[in-house]
Amino acid sequence: MKNILYMATSLNGYIAKKNNETPWSESEWKSYSKIVKSIGNIIIRWNTYKIMKESDEFNSINNPLTIILTNQKLPPKNNFIFVNSPTKALDILKEKGFKKVLISGGKKLNTSFLKKNLIDEIYIDVEPFIFGKGIKLFSEVAIYKNLELLETKLLSKNTIQLHYKVSKD
Amino acid sequence: MKNILYMATSLNGYIAKKNNETPWSESEWKSYSKIVKSIGNIIIRWNTYKIMKESDEFNSINNPLTIILTNQKLPPKNNFIFVNSPTKALDILKEKGFKKVLISGGKKLNTSFLKKNLIDEIYIDVEPFIFGKGIKLFSEVAIYKNLELLETKLLSKNTIQLHYKVSKD
Repeated sequence: MKNILYMATSLNGYIAKKNNETPWSESEWKSYSKIVKSIGNIIIRWNTYKIMKESDEFNSINNPLTIILTNQKLPPKNNFIFVNSPTKALDILKEKGFKKVLISGGKKLNTSFLKKNLIDEIYIDVEPFIFGKGIKLFSEVAIYKNLELLETKLLSKNTIQLHYKVSKD
Repeated sequence: MKNILYMATSLNGYIAKKNNETPWSESEWKSYSKIVKSIGNIIIRWNTYKIMKESDEFNSINNPLTIILTNQKLPPKNNFIFVNSPTKALDILKEKGFKKVLISGGKKLNTSFLKKNLIDEIYIDVEPFIFGKGIKLFSEVAIYKNLELLETKLLSKNTIQLHYKVSKD
């Protein structure tokens, strides 16, 4: 199973403004929707789940199977499954026969997968902004990873997508 | 006069590891050297000056006219001029007839220029790394800037250069 992290960031590496606002482009959103629809699942954390639910984002990405990492014990509901660890999330998706998994934030979730070497590829859509303050892609932890650039793609005039493989060394 | 910020970062936006280490590629260094040589000047802060001096970097970039931002009052020495504000640095370079200025770190210096709307263009060489901890491109301040992507260029297999114009709105 291939585990893919997909995020948009400002040029200086923030996945959102401090207030969680994400002023990303239409082209970024299109690209994200397309990959979610093709993969059919996403893994997110409770906070991201709440933000996406409030803004009715699940409908616009075709209601993928959504695994939510949380310490709350909740029964599955519609397409939402609640688990308390990255490996449990992956086990469920593997069991359901998925070949690819889409990890998509926030910061803590990204970090918990990266720390356990559970990210194979990373897509970053670099949006044309500088945020002085914001939420980082990963938490401040002692991680150091080498990447391999697989592809770059202009999503629009000002937005570029960088696609990397994470080295396993 | 066109003020250009040139930096390399990890994919997640750090300009160095926490210990100031910058494991950048040969291709990044070549690109940086080339632009310094063509512009003929750099503006840096005292810390960057010390790091560059220790590693004999000034020789390898043809000893450009170097303006160092510091609160210490020091007389000019060889190609080194010491000043205490971004505008003084720019005034000196303007007076000497430069058409372009190269701003190149670290974090505090970049921020002091950006805050005063003194950056016209930004080059970021995105290096294929994730650092869990590191030094950010800009300090945490209430800045929000829109950019316009001018060009992207593969410097090598794994390093991509992003070139932006900073919107003045």
